[in-house]
Amino acid sequence: MKLQGSTMPDFNSIEFVNDSLKLVNQTLLPFEEEYIVTDSYERIADAIRRLEVRGAPAIGVAAAYGVALAFKNSAKDDVLFKKVYTTLAETRPTAVNLFFALDRMKKIYENLSGNNVYEELLGEAKKIHNEDIEMCDAMAKNGLEIFKEKSVVLTHCNTGALATGGAGTALAVIKYAYENGMVEFVYADETRPLLQGSRLTAFELEKAGIPFSINVDSAAAFIIKNKKVNLIITGADRIAANGDSANKIGTYSLAVLAKHHGIPFYIAAPSSTIDKSCPTGEEIVIEERSKREVTEIKGVPVTKDSYNVFAPAFDVTPAELIAGIITEEKLFKFPYKF
Amino acid sequence: MKLQGSTMPDFNSIEFVNDSLKLVNQTLLPFEEEYIVTDSYERIADAIRRLEVRGAPAIGVAAAYGVALAFKNSAKDDVLFKKVYTTLAETRPTAVNLFFALDRMKKIYENLSGNNVYEELLGEAKKIHNEDIEMCDAMAKNGLEIFKEKSVVLTHCNTGALATGGAGTALAVIKYAYENGMVEFVYADETRPLLQGSRLTAFELEKAGIPFSINVDSAAAFIIKNKKVNLIITGADRIAANGDSANKIGTYSLAVLAKHHGIPFYIAAPSSTIDKSCPTGEEIVIEERSKREVTEIKGVPVTKDSYNVFAPAFDVTPAELIAGIITEEKLFKFPYKF
Repeated sequence: MKLQGSTMPDFNSIEFVNDSLKLVNQTLLPFEEEYIVTDSYERIADAIRRLEVRGAPAIGVAAAYGVALAFKNSAKDDVLFKKVYTTLAETRPTAVNLFFALDRMKKIYENLSGNNVYEELLGEAKKIHNEDIEMCDAMAKNGLEIFKEKSVVLTHCNTGALATGGAGTALAVIKYAYENGMVEFVYADETRPLLQGSRLTAFELEKAGIPFSINVDSAAAFIIKNKKVNLIITGADRIAANGDSANKIGTYSLAVLAKHHGIPFYIAAPSSTIDKSCPTGEEIVIEERSKREVTEIKGVPVTKDSYNVFAPAFDVTPAELIAGIITEEKLFKFPYKF
Repeated sequence: MKLQGSTMPDFNSIEFVNDSLKLVNQTLLPFEEEYIVTDSYERIADAIRRLEVRGAPAIGVAAAYGVALAFKNSAKDDVLFKKVYTTLAETRPTAVNLFFALDRMKKIYENLSGNNVYEELLGEAKKIHNEDIEMCDAMAKNGLEIFKEKSVVLTHCNTGALATGGAGTALAVIKYAYENGMVEFVYADETRPLLQGSRLTAFELEKAGIPFSINVDSAAAFIIKNKKVNLIITGADRIAANGDSANKIGTYSLAVLAKHHGIPFYIAAPSSTIDKSCPTGEEIVIEERSKREVTEIKGVPVTKDSYNVFAPAFDVTPAELIAGIITEEKLFKFPYKF
């Protein structure tokens, strides 16, 4: 097969231009495509805190540029570095990628080879960004082999350019397959409670020019059965050593529905998501979210906030329901040996 | 087993008091429990039109009382009757129960035995209402045998006193079982797009004093697996002769999940829901709803209304996934012979 198309994102959610960081303001999407252009690390910290930039890899990339920009007009200054590091680290204290990026920047700062602090830090930030782009690119290419025919695809949550520094994970796979003539149509679950599907994935699919529609999450079964869905693909937040995968609530449901209807369910995620220290999904603790995510939508109460709510953020899909896990290294198949 | 409790509703969504109709205003639930008390058939027509009263059987009962009340201070008057009939019939032109009730009222009007028109019409309206209460009562009692142990139950959409003239369908079964010590906890799907679960079912469960929580629809699989759900029960809008059942979007998904997890999935619906002229679910046409139900929530845009939306109102669950269908006559079991 002759490969066509590109795994570059259709728009830049994060871009470094004219010594400034340019970020699409995700809180306004899909209604307004407004960009934040700044060379202030404090403004970048605000953007992370306000979720104007979100998605684990994207946050790491933005923070790395933030560290570099703090030294745009400054010589080596340990007090400043400490302040910048702390400010950025405190924005989303549970984001692993954020600390991974900040620690790489710290290592560069502590081992500067010359006097141009800004240039050395910026070099590392660009490297972190490029690695993310390349990882998405490799994942998208490794994912092409799961498409056996021109396919109708169903996906869940947001896994495209908005979530990463590159073209995304599951959505990058879909986009690359589309550009190679292997995707006919995409059904995007709206993804309650936070509607990342109908807000962000829809925005990305439109940007990519891929035919799609959005649906309430509970319509997935009807769609799989009646709309000839060929395969389901989602991202993952954490993958255990045996392949059990934690992802946005609703993913496990899709894997069960895929099995019942005899279609494959795939996951696309960077190999950094695989946690070899975690033997199975049993060990993954599922975070519960605020009940307000269910009782309110965009700040508008939809039901009484006194009602009991059960709001797991993620669920765990057992490895045996996953036909394959696509990483930047390769397409792993069940049973998983990473 | 000694039966305890009652299948009477915990609150009266429709009540006839002091020659007036008293309706809970469902558009304000669950935030405010406000009642409309009126003896005006025009106000009743407004209430149906504005969805202040909803649920197929409930609409029929309200309309029947409306016809009677129009003659509270009036002798036989064919022009008036025609006007009343037309006004009420035009409120929800696709509601079968509405026409069923109006036609029964018409038959009474056309065959009046004496001069007290109001009394004769009111008698029939009360009869329609009582039949509905008795039907719910019988369904609830027939449903008790599906509970083999004190159970954790999952349900979808709204099937209680708000939807009928009596205690409801699936929710009446749950309530009666709870009062007989057979229900430990109820998980109620919020039921996108219109959130009847988190708004109305939650209100009914709280009124009944049953321990419950609400959840996003896509969390059902996680809940079934991790919260030891014993059975799933929903209502139905239309049941084909072979048992294939159309119900609120998301129901089919629950039936598949029940099968995968080895728990039974039941339906509770009046026998009038069984359409013997419809051989299988294949013949049931699925209505598509306005895309706004997905792109807006309570009038607030959540995503761009230019996006393509696929919004089926119902789905069809194949008979072989339904362990039993509870009607006011009996508990039918697969394979279905009605």
